[in-house]
Amino acid sequence: MRPGPGNTRSLHPVKLIRVGVLGCGNVGAPLVSLIARQQAVIEARKGVRLEVVAVAVRSLAKVRDITLPGGALTTDAMAVVNNPDVDVVVELIGGVEPARALITAALRNGKPVITGNKELLAKHGAELYALADELGVDLLFEAAVAGGIPIVRALRESLRGEPVSRIMGIINGTTNFILTKMTEEGAEYADVLAEAQALGYAEVDPTADVEGYDAGAKAAIMACIAFGADVVAGDVHHEGISALTAADITMAKRLGYVVKLLGIAEQDRATGAIGVRVHPTMVPFTHPLASVRLAYNAVFVEGDSVGSLMFYGRGAGGDPTASAVLGDVIDAATNLSKNTHATLGAFPRAAIRPIDEITTEYLLSMDVADRPGVLHAVTGVFARHGVSIRAAEQEGHGADARLVFITHDAVEASLQATVRELRGLDEVLKVGTVLRVIKA
Amino acid sequence: MRPGPGNTRSLHPVKLIRVGVLGCGNVGAPLVSLIARQQAVIEARKGVRLEVVAVAVRSLAKVRDITLPGGALTTDAMAVVNNPDVDVVVELIGGVEPARALITAALRNGKPVITGNKELLAKHGAELYALADELGVDLLFEAAVAGGIPIVRALRESLRGEPVSRIMGIINGTTNFILTKMTEEGAEYADVLAEAQALGYAEVDPTADVEGYDAGAKAAIMACIAFGADVVAGDVHHEGISALTAADITMAKRLGYVVKLLGIAEQDRATGAIGVRVHPTMVPFTHPLASVRLAYNAVFVEGDSVGSLMFYGRGAGGDPTASAVLGDVIDAATNLSKNTHATLGAFPRAAIRPIDEITTEYLLSMDVADRPGVLHAVTGVFARHGVSIRAAEQEGHGADARLVFITHDAVEASLQATVRELRGLDEVLKVGTVLRVIKA
Repeated sequence: MRPGPGNTRSLHPVKLIRVGVLGCGNVGAPLVSLIARQQAVIEARKGVRLEVVAVAVRSLAKVRDITLPGGALTTDAMAVVNNPDVDVVVELIGGVEPARALITAALRNGKPVITGNKELLAKHGAELYALADELGVDLLFEAAVAGGIPIVRALRESLRGEPVSRIMGIINGTTNFILTKMTEEGAEYADVLAEAQALGYAEVDPTADVEGYDAGAKAAIMACIAFGADVVAGDVHHEGISALTAADITMAKRLGYVVKLLGIAEQDRATGAIGVRVHPTMVPFTHPLASVRLAYNAVFVEGDSVGSLMFYGRGAGGDPTASAVLGDVIDAATNLSKNTHATLGAFPRAAIRPIDEITTEYLLSMDVADRPGVLHAVTGVFARHGVSIRAAEQEGHGADARLVFITHDAVEASLQATVRELRGLDEVLKVGTVLRVIKA
Repeated sequence: MRPGPGNTRSLHPVKLIRVGVLGCGNVGAPLVSLIARQQAVIEARKGVRLEVVAVAVRSLAKVRDITLPGGALTTDAMAVVNNPDVDVVVELIGGVEPARALITAALRNGKPVITGNKELLAKHGAELYALADELGVDLLFEAAVAGGIPIVRALRESLRGEPVSRIMGIINGTTNFILTKMTEEGAEYADVLAEAQALGYAEVDPTADVEGYDAGAKAAIMACIAFGADVVAGDVHHEGISALTAADITMAKRLGYVVKLLGIAEQDRATGAIGVRVHPTMVPFTHPLASVRLAYNAVFVEGDSVGSLMFYGRGAGGDPTASAVLGDVIDAATNLSKNTHATLGAFPRAAIRPIDEITTEYLLSMDVADRPGVLHAVTGVFARHGVSIRAAEQEGHGADARLVFITHDAVEASLQATVRELRGLDEVLKVGTVLRVIKA
């Protein structure tokens, strides 16, 4: 039975699959090169021959380091979608329109679509998944979440039968770079942001990254697939990292934690409600997410049966993202050659659990007057709201007196009520950063 | 377009897929329970209804905590394979025979097979993959490598187009447990092995784990899929952990490394030759593999385009492994319902790169006579064999004098020749453990 040396061919006839690419920038250009480089290997192993036959670009004048057949470049993306010589469409333009119209048209033309467009999917994912399913055409989007890390396929396929309870991801490289520098160098936020901007790791307007919108879109997409319900970007509770200080991070470190911006998606087993939130989080040193440094991403998945899984890698960048796109292109091509397609199904609108109802541990710090009875007054506020304290300590004395508390699991609404009442207390000069805490 | 609440059904008609399970032990029993628990969710999302209709066991007398239809239990595994009411076969018996005969018969009956049998696949994988491909039937085996971690699917599908250069895995929980305890508690190998045996983490005869055979089988299977060539267990170079001492591990720690048993599969780009080896390895503290503790597994994949990826999770245990099997069962069932199947293709026999030809950094320590000229004599031996030294230091004095070297990248054959010549040197009292080193 064992095939002889040199027999690298699949037993099935090779099928030519012609690829049209919309957008030839950061991801599109390395994708075109990677397809050319890997063409022979893919053909030998999967029985499909990929050829890029059309590429839509913004400007024909720009010099590009890619080799294409004559006439393949065009500025008319819809012409690529409607080109009868294009079998598979790769959308790398980004943004909601015209990407949505292009993808819809391609699907209606019966052409599988591969996209890395997180903004579009976090808004209109369920509509597009249902359309693809209805039409019996592939819509694949590994590159939309965490670049080169194959988390979408893991959630769609490997974990399809797993009772997933929670997903926690470091899914924004810019903020992880900033937080890593703050942690390891004791630097302040504004200084590291400036450095990240100089290095090209942060945009001139960093809002989408530092306020958690980018991570929120990715978390919404993952929640959708993991829990089988339509969650959109607007459902996500966001808190960014711009208010964090070097002192917050030093305090976390002293307590055995590192501060990470996590995108967290959870399903309440009893009610089925789904909560998605992005916020700075205290992660214990021993947790696998704690050692994810700089621009790396990681997604931590918890399931009743599988236990804990983590997927780690480069969450952005042209080459890793092109690799993720290529995996999907091969999948769509082999499905086409077999006359089949993958299916996500029709997702009902999710019941969303408001942030007020989440349960987690919290860290609270506050500057206080250094006099007898302060701890008694402060702990009385916690007690009145049913928030139980796991650890308390005083830092500094006199004018620098500061109390730091870590709570047991508490409900967000009670914690916020506690903070409000503490702010009104004479003994409390200032309530500092409130950070949610995950367990080891 | 957005589907309304409650509309959780796929748009396609539900297909009943009847599952036969061979073996109802550590993995089989939780699998039967998990299928029952997740049946409705799977049906809603994937349009297939899974029912376990037959289970082959060794003894009908054993009390089991699972619910099955009357008459589903049998001691005749081949009868399950040939039962016309069974659509999909799950093989969880292990070992080469009768598993090989059962799987072959099932495939010839046109029934998709899911197996977690690493021993069989590391011996006869290519033969079975080619048979499945020829017959157009699924043969899926996520559970054969690293339990609940979806590394097989990532290599088969997500990374199908990626130029993978190297895979390094902590893929044996027993040895990782022992090495973690030795590292964190400074304990000796024999003491921790006894503890692991008492806890049920190590077998009474621990050879397969501690000498690297189990990891070798998994590494061979991964090499096969990643590089598209037939690599078998017999191709793997093995070195175990039983000769490691607490002193070796302390020394590694002092130098900034943790010692892990890694299964490493590499392809030489120039020649295409594949090398697979299992041995204790010095892993820098900052490497993601360094923080994988106790019985956890992780697989680190390096590709030219995707960069570094890591997959982390529970590499063994009934529940995580059952989760991996279920993912494959769902895949096979949806493929059946769509009249399609996955394909690995026919793998040519790999050209194997002998261990003598690998290139890596090494740590060498040796007890030496504490007198002038020793370092000169010893470094002369390195120089004669073209092994360049990156770092050298002396530990202890007088009777306890010891030299520790870390080399630059060197060829194994040269390193071994260096060791042989050092053993003959008057100044060298004893050459200690030789450890290969990976870079940060």
